[in-house]
Amino acid sequence: MSTTEKVLARIEAEFPRHQQRWLDWLRIPSISAQPQHAPDCRAAAEYARAQLADIGFTASVREAAGQPVVVAHHPGPGGNAPHLLYYGHYDVQPPDPLDEWKTPPFEPRMTEEGGVKRILARGVADDKGQLMTFIEACRAFIAAEGKLPLAVTIMLEGEEETGSPSLKPFLDKNKKELKADVALVCDTDMWDAKTPAITTMLRGLVLEEVIVTGPSRDLHSGLFGGAAMNPIHALGKVIAAIHSDRGRIVISGFYDGVNDLAPEIHAQWKSLGFDEKKFLGDFGQTKAAGEVNQSVLEQIWARPTCDVNGIIGGYTGVGSKTVIPSKASAKFSFRLVNKQDPEKVQTGFRKFVRERLPEGYKVEFISHGASPALQLPLSSPYLQKARAALKAEWGRDAVLKGSGGSIPIVGSFKRDLGMDSLLIGYGLDDDRIHSPNEKYDLTSFHKGARSWARILAALAGG
Amino acid sequence: MSTTEKVLARIEAEFPRHQQRWLDWLRIPSISAQPQHAPDCRAAAEYARAQLADIGFTASVREAAGQPVVVAHHPGPGGNAPHLLYYGHYDVQPPDPLDEWKTPPFEPRMTEEGGVKRILARGVADDKGQLMTFIEACRAFIAAEGKLPLAVTIMLEGEEETGSPSLKPFLDKNKKELKADVALVCDTDMWDAKTPAITTMLRGLVLEEVIVTGPSRDLHSGLFGGAAMNPIHALGKVIAAIHSDRGRIVISGFYDGVNDLAPEIHAQWKSLGFDEKKFLGDFGQTKAAGEVNQSVLEQIWARPTCDVNGIIGGYTGVGSKTVIPSKASAKFSFRLVNKQDPEKVQTGFRKFVRERLPEGYKVEFISHGASPALQLPLSSPYLQKARAALKAEWGRDAVLKGSGGSIPIVGSFKRDLGMDSLLIGYGLDDDRIHSPNEKYDLTSFHKGARSWARILAALAGG
Repeated sequence: MSTTEKVLARIEAEFPRHQQRWLDWLRIPSISAQPQHAPDCRAAAEYARAQLADIGFTASVREAAGQPVVVAHHPGPGGNAPHLLYYGHYDVQPPDPLDEWKTPPFEPRMTEEGGVKRILARGVADDKGQLMTFIEACRAFIAAEGKLPLAVTIMLEGEEETGSPSLKPFLDKNKKELKADVALVCDTDMWDAKTPAITTMLRGLVLEEVIVTGPSRDLHSGLFGGAAMNPIHALGKVIAAIHSDRGRIVISGFYDGVNDLAPEIHAQWKSLGFDEKKFLGDFGQTKAAGEVNQSVLEQIWARPTCDVNGIIGGYTGVGSKTVIPSKASAKFSFRLVNKQDPEKVQTGFRKFVRERLPEGYKVEFISHGASPALQLPLSSPYLQKARAALKAEWGRDAVLKGSGGSIPIVGSFKRDLGMDSLLIGYGLDDDRIHSPNEKYDLTSFHKGARSWARILAALAGG
Repeated sequence: MSTTEKVLARIEAEFPRHQQRWLDWLRIPSISAQPQHAPDCRAAAEYARAQLADIGFTASVREAAGQPVVVAHHPGPGGNAPHLLYYGHYDVQPPDPLDEWKTPPFEPRMTEEGGVKRILARGVADDKGQLMTFIEACRAFIAAEGKLPLAVTIMLEGEEETGSPSLKPFLDKNKKELKADVALVCDTDMWDAKTPAITTMLRGLVLEEVIVTGPSRDLHSGLFGGAAMNPIHALGKVIAAIHSDRGRIVISGFYDGVNDLAPEIHAQWKSLGFDEKKFLGDFGQTKAAGEVNQSVLEQIWARPTCDVNGIIGGYTGVGSKTVIPSKASAKFSFRLVNKQDPEKVQTGFRKFVRERLPEGYKVEFISHGASPALQLPLSSPYLQKARAALKAEWGRDAVLKGSGGSIPIVGSFKRDLGMDSLLIGYGLDDDRIHSPNEKYDLTSFHKGARSWARILAALAGG
């Protein structure tokens, strides 16, 4: 029996006990957003620490500015074996609205829906279930082989659901301890219940608030209208000018650094049979709004965008008030891909706005952040090995996905610790995370643990 | 001595007592917006009633839904003499902020600023001073001649400063009693301290709220941005499309019914030496924003406009939130002139919005009102006679002004009572109405009363 076969056999043998440990953890209501649950957060951290210590990690619950952080190390075999940093979180979303739950959110219950066995509980997928798949894979590995095949550090935070306010200071303070060769981040989904996925493209983000001033004070639109500037009109001109009729962003230099999709990825996405109509129909659209000649998957994963996320000016109450406001403002966000330079996008945008504003208006900009896109190169050996391992488990190629949103921890790992991240998870898009009746399929749990066992073996292999 | 000379002589002889009566009235804090001042409103109404009864009017304080209305009739000479309805209001604005007043707002004080004698008090101009000029003219006429030269009804409301909520029902209920040949409305200004004015053009108003829906629910702009519609973008397209680069409104048919300014008016306005630079500079502009090739006075008095008075959509708090909102809305107002049809403007605008919205968006409209422009024809005999009377008093032609804002009572008189209005007042644009240290020049008061005496005589003359 190969190492992998032995480890997988352990997982099979242990499966009922795996579940038990998972359910116990789910009973702890570790809701980070609610101060009265701070002791529960600590209890959930302690539970994870004990599990990890139990299987041979040097594990501790470490104080941070907010909820504590679990850090655990396993030395692996020594020598030149790579060093992994595994990241997850033990905190969960508040369960409200409670009356929409079929069973109490912190009393995990096995259920069967459409022939599929799953467990219902808050946090069952996000993130305790995803996380437990990795811990159980480590447990099986150590039980079968006496040790892990590579050095592993596990870091579990307790504030992911509240925006991870304490994580960056914690990383900064413990850089040396946490630095590894590559990070594993488990907070992502499969393509579908039968097809695994690795998220290899994360869009970057530039956030710009624009405040336009016309007249130096609010004016009565009857007495001054016709002669007075109106900053809402000026903002309208800017907003209308940003996109061409074909959905392209016309800011000069905006597409610098944007590459066409690698032919391999393009072909894979095309082969997925993604149901654009269903995807768009879910929020009432019959047609995609973005660049023409780009598929929906490309539009949301692989193409840069500009959206106005908020606008306000003048009178916004009930009825009418004939005011010409002195100021109006809008919040713009840009999603970046590939090698787009956030600073160049910001500069280009500000120049564009200044050029498009009619004479006489003043403008002020506030930056709310700027970060580049993150992309794991197709040639990455970690990626190649993980793909092979997933294929061995699922019998299908893993989809190499993009994600339109940002996952801040991945940016931190790249910028602060100089590591790429492998984003692999076994969630499904119907897991109802953050909603009532959150669930995780037993298959996700079971085959997830098996997948990690294979990935650990593969990453350790030369 | 002519009738007019005799009446003017009475005004001169009575002037100190005129002032006294005016000051007594000003001591009553008839603040309609503040319920604790309801007894003061009633006292101010009673004061006016007593004054009018004293000089021979049949005067009463009449109940209305809110503050009472003073109605007083003088029969005039009988026969075919025209019948005037004079409108004013006895209520005043709250005096806040109190600490900015040089003297207590309800203790009127004579002062001299730059060699000009004036009285400081809340309501001294708006509207008790303006109103008192007319009552004193009537008093002098009756004292000199035993009667007024034409039938006069005086109606003084007590809710002008709170939007006249009870006035329309009161007019409707007392149509027959209040109907006259022409109305006098005294709430307006002179051109400058030496030049009288008659406001003959009031712009109309169409108020339209536009609610645009893109996706059927709010979306995360990272996960959906690129494929999702964005109603803020759609509104921006509409707003940007309404005005041409030359400041014209491009809605089809919008200028139907808009006439060029009468050459006489055009020439008069040109001759006024209006300081556009100073006017615009007061609110921070160096250049007018409206139609090119139109003077500022034309832009604000004689040309139709479109302004967005308010816009809101998405996240408008501090910082950023990467949302694509389902809905965004904007409040539009149109100022109309001449014979523009409010209904056609509304219809044309709605069609324009529907045509300009990119495919897939839904739109909903809410009307917040629609009223036509009001214009006193140059050929009106009332206007001609009033102009001549003002010229006799001031030695200068009265400026025939426009007003960009609407004066709802004038619309009511036109629509509900079928009367034109002559808008004549002796206020100045530095009277600080609605602000601390409101003032009215003694010259306004004195020559105002003399002007009304001449106008009454002129309107009575064949």
